[in-house]
Amino acid sequence: MCHKIRLMSNYTNINANPYADDFPTLKVMLGKETPMRLDCGTEISNFPMAYQTYGTLNADKSNAILVTHALTGDQFAADTHPISGKSGWWSKMIGPGKAIDTNLYFVICSNVLGGCMGTVGPATINPETNQPWGVDFPIITIGDMVRAQALLLDELGIDSLFSVVGGSMGGMQALEWAAAYPERVFSCVPIATAAHHSAQNIAFYEVGRQAIMADPEWCGGRYLIEDKKPHAGLAVARMAAHITYMSEGALTQKFGRRLQDREEVTFGFEADFQIESYLRHQGISFVDRFDANSYLYVTRALDYFDLAASHGNGILAEAFRGTKVRFCVISFSSDWHYPPDESRVIVRGLTGAAANVSYVDVESDKGHDAFFFDEPNFVRVLDGFLRGAAVKRGLLDE
Amino acid sequence: MCHKIRLMSNYTNINANPYADDFPTLKVMLGKETPMRLDCGTEISNFPMAYQTYGTLNADKSNAILVTHALTGDQFAADTHPISGKSGWWSKMIGPGKAIDTNLYFVICSNVLGGCMGTVGPATINPETNQPWGVDFPIITIGDMVRAQALLLDELGIDSLFSVVGGSMGGMQALEWAAAYPERVFSCVPIATAAHHSAQNIAFYEVGRQAIMADPEWCGGRYLIEDKKPHAGLAVARMAAHITYMSEGALTQKFGRRLQDREEVTFGFEADFQIESYLRHQGISFVDRFDANSYLYVTRALDYFDLAASHGNGILAEAFRGTKVRFCVISFSSDWHYPPDESRVIVRGLTGAAANVSYVDVESDKGHDAFFFDEPNFVRVLDGFLRGAAVKRGLLDE
Repeated sequence: MCHKIRLMSNYTNINANPYADDFPTLKVMLGKETPMRLDCGTEISNFPMAYQTYGTLNADKSNAILVTHALTGDQFAADTHPISGKSGWWSKMIGPGKAIDTNLYFVICSNVLGGCMGTVGPATINPETNQPWGVDFPIITIGDMVRAQALLLDELGIDSLFSVVGGSMGGMQALEWAAAYPERVFSCVPIATAAHHSAQNIAFYEVGRQAIMADPEWCGGRYLIEDKKPHAGLAVARMAAHITYMSEGALTQKFGRRLQDREEVTFGFEADFQIESYLRHQGISFVDRFDANSYLYVTRALDYFDLAASHGNGILAEAFRGTKVRFCVISFSSDWHYPPDESRVIVRGLTGAAANVSYVDVESDKGHDAFFFDEPNFVRVLDGFLRGAAVKRGLLDE
Repeated sequence: MCHKIRLMSNYTNINANPYADDFPTLKVMLGKETPMRLDCGTEISNFPMAYQTYGTLNADKSNAILVTHALTGDQFAADTHPISGKSGWWSKMIGPGKAIDTNLYFVICSNVLGGCMGTVGPATINPETNQPWGVDFPIITIGDMVRAQALLLDELGIDSLFSVVGGSMGGMQALEWAAAYPERVFSCVPIATAAHHSAQNIAFYEVGRQAIMADPEWCGGRYLIEDKKPHAGLAVARMAAHITYMSEGALTQKFGRRLQDREEVTFGFEADFQIESYLRHQGISFVDRFDANSYLYVTRALDYFDLAASHGNGILAEAFRGTKVRFCVISFSSDWHYPPDESRVIVRGLTGAAANVSYVDVESDKGHDAFFFDEPNFVRVLDGFLRGAAVKRGLLDE
């Protein structure tokens, strides 16, 4: 015998509980007087939405930017994450003097419907049963996420957003905002995103869902009630998805075939290669902060997203017909999760509606995740577009 | 509640046993007098190798083609698979008058070392313990697979192969043959392959391995002894890998966002989309015919493959220095598993050794799996190259 086997992790030692609601965040109850009707037909009422804000709302409430988060993101866009202890996922972009300049704008970022950081989702207690919703939680869509965000703006007394800005699933929410509430959006920045999920996108998330559901600790979705966690399945789901967020070139450059803390391969199934070690770490650290059922629900919302179908009767341009929103569509050259071609489809749709649209494909080797990094050309474009729009909105002198 | 949950499959109903050895195939015992030393250092002796042949060996034994199979392939290249009942995986390519013409050539295809169709592997009974090897089976490499094939040829009394032809992992074996036994190979056709596994390749197979090892039915690798099968984990591994075998374009064309036997989405986690249904089927049907531990071992052999490192001291051209082998390197334009660039690396290495090499990148939308299909230009190239080489070898008149 010339090797050893070791499992990825002993998950049972992980104690962090992302559902404890014991971290500070802003929270409102929505749908109090009138229930909110979901696309699936179910109505939900009196449900929590968690959010964070940065900067100051001006007197006429015209400087609000809604930042919308990606699949595994949350409302902690620009401050320390209460579970991981890491900087907010867009700390590089949001702050005084940064592209999303908190000296100028009032930034709101809310946890999506179906999430697990304080907004209602499958891990939330269902008041009717006094137990977590689990898979009895209704299926939600990107449309539902945005509808709930609109209720949040109502609560905050904000009629109209100066801008809605988001990458990946956040970009889908930005597009949905422009299509569903064109009168409430002055400008819109969909980044590294698509107007619908492709077969390949659906396929990758289906693998992740099957990995979670195949984990016996998933317990048919009732794991919180059974005091279990499908950590192994969720970690595999995260690993599979994470590969699609990085470009092949970046993986080769960052890891190649380099070995992890060893001179030679061990002839075994340990993480001989740095890429294996990295991926395992991605999987293990993810389960600390994310709920497996939320992963099922939010990926399903992604799969169901089809803006042309939901707002344009099958024609994307129709979803934007007559829009006054100013668009800045941004893609990254090495993104193969939502490739630049998907952004070009959005631009074609917008152009077909004679919309005010700029498009930039940023040259980058960082793949889909490039929008998390401060790629200089990306930052410049975002900063420039927002400042230009701010002049038009009267927030800045020319 | 507006949806239902259903697991991918009730695996416990699957009775097919790929390890029963109760199907007809040719088999020899190898390493009888002298044990075979594996790259990991372990020696194995008196081990079975299963194979199939097609066509007739000529009198001077100069017309043998070794066809080498891919990760999930086996020796049933051109006859009905004994478990799935389907045609052999290369039935379109091997037969009278076909590109690999059995009127002209004697074709041998053997199950790889570590496989589960009769050649020794982790599911084989270890004579010392009278139990399946499981994860006590030594780690094997592409080099070991080829070394065992060379012993098979010794048994068959074949000194020299007219050609070694294979796609994907089969192409790696073809390259390994040319590097390790240049005097025993007249021509070599590596198809849709690479001279080493990239970080992205390793990453995808690592996800599959983690899915298998995370399945409690894997039992630390002892599932056959415990009378269990990690079917769910293996199915997820297959689904993740299968996505990489198809081009994004082909997925869009074949499935797009089309729904499976329904008019509208169900707002649930059933296979609403055709691509989901297709992938689940791929996963479920795979576990009938493949051993989970074999999947671990053979993917590990892929990860460890690095021809420049093992034969060229880090320089690919050195692995082929002075070779007289005639090479035909073939890639497919839409293959992103082993993209055309990987084939170009091989061609550069061969050219750097002044080898006799032709290279064709076949325009195809079928992705990595294109070599399983009868893409006309692919078939023409393979047929033409082999017939041209056959003239040079004196098997055919000019």
